[in-house]
Amino acid sequence: MSLMLSKVEPIKRVEKVGIDEAVGRVLAEDVVACIDIPPFDRAAMDGYAVKAKDTFDASQYSPAKFKLVAELSPEQDPSLEVGEMECVRVATGCKIPRGADSVVMLEHTEPSGEHVLVYRPVHPWENVSKRGSDIGRGTKPLRSGDFLTPARVGVLAALGRSEVLVLERPRVAVVPTGDELVELGRPLEGAKVYDVNSHTVGAVVRENGCVPVVFPITPDDEAGLLEALKRALEFDMVVVTGGSSVGAEDLMGKVLESLGEVLFHGIQIKPGKPTVCAVAHGKLILGMPGHPTSCLSNSYLMLVALCRRLAGLPEKHATPLRARLSRRVVSTLGRKFFLTVKLEGGLASPVFKESSAITSMADADGYVVIPENADVVEAGDEVEVYPFL
Amino acid sequence: MSLMLSKVEPIKRVEKVGIDEAVGRVLAEDVVACIDIPPFDRAAMDGYAVKAKDTFDASQYSPAKFKLVAELSPEQDPSLEVGEMECVRVATGCKIPRGADSVVMLEHTEPSGEHVLVYRPVHPWENVSKRGSDIGRGTKPLRSGDFLTPARVGVLAALGRSEVLVLERPRVAVVPTGDELVELGRPLEGAKVYDVNSHTVGAVVRENGCVPVVFPITPDDEAGLLEALKRALEFDMVVVTGGSSVGAEDLMGKVLESLGEVLFHGIQIKPGKPTVCAVAHGKLILGMPGHPTSCLSNSYLMLVALCRRLAGLPEKHATPLRARLSRRVVSTLGRKFFLTVKLEGGLASPVFKESSAITSMADADGYVVIPENADVVEAGDEVEVYPFL
Repeated sequence: MSLMLSKVEPIKRVEKVGIDEAVGRVLAEDVVACIDIPPFDRAAMDGYAVKAKDTFDASQYSPAKFKLVAELSPEQDPSLEVGEMECVRVATGCKIPRGADSVVMLEHTEPSGEHVLVYRPVHPWENVSKRGSDIGRGTKPLRSGDFLTPARVGVLAALGRSEVLVLERPRVAVVPTGDELVELGRPLEGAKVYDVNSHTVGAVVRENGCVPVVFPITPDDEAGLLEALKRALEFDMVVVTGGSSVGAEDLMGKVLESLGEVLFHGIQIKPGKPTVCAVAHGKLILGMPGHPTSCLSNSYLMLVALCRRLAGLPEKHATPLRARLSRRVVSTLGRKFFLTVKLEGGLASPVFKESSAITSMADADGYVVIPENADVVEAGDEVEVYPFL
Repeated sequence: MSLMLSKVEPIKRVEKVGIDEAVGRVLAEDVVACIDIPPFDRAAMDGYAVKAKDTFDASQYSPAKFKLVAELSPEQDPSLEVGEMECVRVATGCKIPRGADSVVMLEHTEPSGEHVLVYRPVHPWENVSKRGSDIGRGTKPLRSGDFLTPARVGVLAALGRSEVLVLERPRVAVVPTGDELVELGRPLEGAKVYDVNSHTVGAVVRENGCVPVVFPITPDDEAGLLEALKRALEFDMVVVTGGSSVGAEDLMGKVLESLGEVLFHGIQIKPGKPTVCAVAHGKLILGMPGHPTSCLSNSYLMLVALCRRLAGLPEKHATPLRARLSRRVVSTLGRKFFLTVKLEGGLASPVFKESSAITSMADADGYVVIPENADVVEAGDEVEVYPFL
């Protein structure tokens, strides 16, 4: 996996999007704050803006008496200046008038005609959000490569930015091969089956920050496959979903060797063994097995991380759920087993049928990886389930 | 939370989408299989299709000798019938010819002129995926309400479906209020600040299967708010992001009372206390505090679940990461504390500044909820971090 990842660089192309379309994207510029946030000293509480030093002697028994000179609401820009022993009524969010340096909370005051009694001292800047304390002008609150969460969209909004540069979504070519495959919408005849893999792989690509570009079904011959792969290499990464037979696998290996460097051919995973990976013209080509479940389980184990790296996205948060296995499962020593399970009441029930059955995946809530060095997992053993949902 | 959730029903409107756009959506029809999957008895291995009974006496020392009558590739529809002691070469995925009921794996055979030697018996249907064994014609492999994972998109493809009915994305009205707010793209003057909340709330709505419909900034007066809310109630749910001052909160409460039933007013969470929830005309209205961090933390604690329920999506997978707190944190007894943290080397470092600071959220990798009954969490204590990424 790390070998494959090392061959994939995050995309460099960028595009400008409105900030409301930017959530989930990856920032492609350092954002320099062109204003302070808050843009002015701001009341953090409802109360009275005062000079703090005028409250230092105030106490429950001996309140300080301030002259109320104005009342502000948050949108008002105060032109007055607060003098000694004067106060201005402010709501949370109000701009603090000149001369004042703190806010006495409403709870610690009492109105008294044209005056206000203050029962507690405040220190300078108490209950004030100082200008620039959230984001200082000239600083970089967000940097190129940052993943845009809702809060980071909020930073852009706070700075008044309506558009932002983000990484483009990489385009991943998905090339289905197999003479037995039929495209959706055409009649199914004889020994043909509908193409499943380009749709499942496309869905995984789409869920992980990339755009799938699905090719027409390519026949299982060397010339056709080579021709399709050459066109596919114009995109940022290539996934070929292969024929599932020995002959088809050999063909894929041969064609990939002629195009570039084969990184590996065959992996110790069940299902999904006949997987090939190559690099050509600086692009990664992943040759997936033709069985729908093998192809899709490999997509979870490899393609998710590759797409996310290509898109500049953070690694997928991979905290599994813990559950107990409902029944004994026999695995093969020396091969990882990607076991799909259904979760019911803390029990993980295996639903794996066979690697050609799409329901092995579709009926599952998630998967368990049984390591190479285990040949049996007993009923009741705790397993870690990675959810599909 | 359960009270609020009980007031929200999943959306009933449906729309037809192409299956490649269906991943992440919610199915709005029972899918009946109109064909068997596989559509025919299919070879699960490369090898020779035979009548199983003809192999019963085969052994390593006394192989059975079959006459090779044809070689098939996966796309070929075999017209021949396999007779006694005859075999047909098949690749994985091939349609099993009539007369044959099993496949002998290539590894257990040896070619011998026009014949093939078989060194092991197979039982009937060994190495054959029987017609309909994955999905039987007339069954319902997917049902209305199912969340469409890549594998379930694969089921649709296997059945030849190119389009499918899914639930519409609910439309959530987002109404920003506050006289101090300025829309993006306009100049910032005096005591004004840019509207942050409609963008952060919109992002959370969008990330959770709904479409935000952002209203123009509504002034903090009763008539204006009432008028905006009446229009907002034409949508599936309403979020009002409020002024943060005492006066604004009172106004929101008053207006919501006049429109419908107030479910609660004020919650024991820091930040985010001044939150109001009401139901009017069967729609939920959530009145959020104006402070950007309070508004956004409440969005994670409440709006995420409400949007997902409205959209018919499964509850968010909520397995937190475990980390140790980098420093002592003091909380308030009787109030939950939504503490934002940065994760570095297994340590969770608090980054909460104040509820008005958007960087309290934007600089965080996730959040910890400190329960009502804790007033101190010590440095080094283990906490559960819910990631934003």
